[in-house]
Amino acid sequence: MTRLLVVKISGNIIDDEVKLFSFLKEFAGIDAPKILVHGGGKLATKLAETMGVKQQLVDGRRITDAETLKIVTMVYAGYINKNIVARLQSHHCNALGLCGADGDSILAHKRKHPVVDYGYVGDVDAINTTLLKSLLDQNITIVFAPITHDQQGQLLNTNADTIAQEVAKGLSHQFDVSLVYSFEKSGVLLDAEDDSTVIAELTPSYYKQLKEKEKIFAGMIPKLDNAFTALNNGVKKVIIGKAENLRQLIDGSSGTTIINE
Amino acid sequence: MTRLLVVKISGNIIDDEVKLFSFLKEFAGIDAPKILVHGGGKLATKLAETMGVKQQLVDGRRITDAETLKIVTMVYAGYINKNIVARLQSHHCNALGLCGADGDSILAHKRKHPVVDYGYVGDVDAINTTLLKSLLDQNITIVFAPITHDQQGQLLNTNADTIAQEVAKGLSHQFDVSLVYSFEKSGVLLDAEDDSTVIAELTPSYYKQLKEKEKIFAGMIPKLDNAFTALNNGVKKVIIGKAENLRQLIDGSSGTTIINE
Repeated sequence: MTRLLVVKISGNIIDDEVKLFSFLKEFAGIDAPKILVHGGGKLATKLAETMGVKQQLVDGRRITDAETLKIVTMVYAGYINKNIVARLQSHHCNALGLCGADGDSILAHKRKHPVVDYGYVGDVDAINTTLLKSLLDQNITIVFAPITHDQQGQLLNTNADTIAQEVAKGLSHQFDVSLVYSFEKSGVLLDAEDDSTVIAELTPSYYKQLKEKEKIFAGMIPKLDNAFTALNNGVKKVIIGKAENLRQLIDGSSGTTIINE
Repeated sequence: MTRLLVVKISGNIIDDEVKLFSFLKEFAGIDAPKILVHGGGKLATKLAETMGVKQQLVDGRRITDAETLKIVTMVYAGYINKNIVARLQSHHCNALGLCGADGDSILAHKRKHPVVDYGYVGDVDAINTTLLKSLLDQNITIVFAPITHDQQGQLLNTNADTIAQEVAKGLSHQFDVSLVYSFEKSGVLLDAEDDSTVIAELTPSYYKQLKEKEKIFAGMIPKLDNAFTALNNGVKKVIIGKAENLRQLIDGSSGTTIINE
């Protein structure tokens, strides 16, 4: 099967134009079918402040009221997505930006939670792999903004890590998928303060062991749980590491590679 | 050849949610390949006010400085485009929103003008008809935001009427294209204040005659010049009329039809 890279870049890269442009140049140069999923960074929070819209966070997740949804739709699907696409185009990478409503590419439903009302937050139900494969076959690089829809006319704010995982899983029947979570750290660390303690390879049993010893930084757990779910659903490999080392992450010489035993 | 509808909706429909939703329901129900091009409306101006960004207009055209470009990218390519797409999806119309950078669908250059610096405003150079045809062939309805790019990484604010015209012209080799400019009036009027004075049919010679007699409202002239340019470049028919009468515009029972002699 053809290899497909699904790369998620985190907010802190998006907030730093020099790092972002350097990352995008590197990404554009990768000669393989590829999908980029971006988060939001601080731009949405800043715009909300300017507009006087108060932000609420519960367990690190933004509560998305109607005004916040408007802001994230503007910032994620508009400003960030289109600037990334234009930048990739300048490096002769034929990028095309989508949110989940576009071509019904990612169908979701509004999160139901017994206690917390997250507002307009979406949990993913389905990926339109026919559309995505058709675009990839035309040598198009897809750039996803973390906004989905419910087929009833409602846009929904959706976690970008989850989108990357769902897209990777969805396309694993047609492609040999590597899922890359790139962020500010060098990988999964044994000591969160020491970038030299990268775990080169993480298996389910080793992960379980580290979690029991509370050696895994709490913020990493949802990302790693996502990674193992992806592996159990057809994704070949999940790689976590520094955005600046994209090529080394892909060739396995940097970051943490997560594989089944 | 297969018929293709290219429909442009003006800002005042976008500003009125009831009218917009009713229009989109009607548009979704049209069983033919179709492209929607939307303008911006007052949302961008309102957001600029909230953000304290001063707006400048010269000859009815917005001067697009860097901050204004950011705002129109957020509002046009983000908020408006994605909400239109989600709404069309709710009516089982498989819509996909693009700006000109997406898939290099509309290439433009920054306007050069001997006197006025319009800022980040784009004039269209080329339409990627291969991509558009491939999407239309997959039964996808394309929704264009009036933002283009220059292939050097720069997004550009671009007149939506012009985008509609260029897309219609570009696809006229592959489709039998009708270009519909829908707005708040019933068509091209002999008396701008009287909606019953619609000109049913406008030919180049009749247009010339009316212009000489100063019978054409100044604001209509760029739209009509656009219309005739489209006709001279392969578009079969241009129709101007009320967005509420979309079906009647298409079947010729409402609005002004612009045709060659």
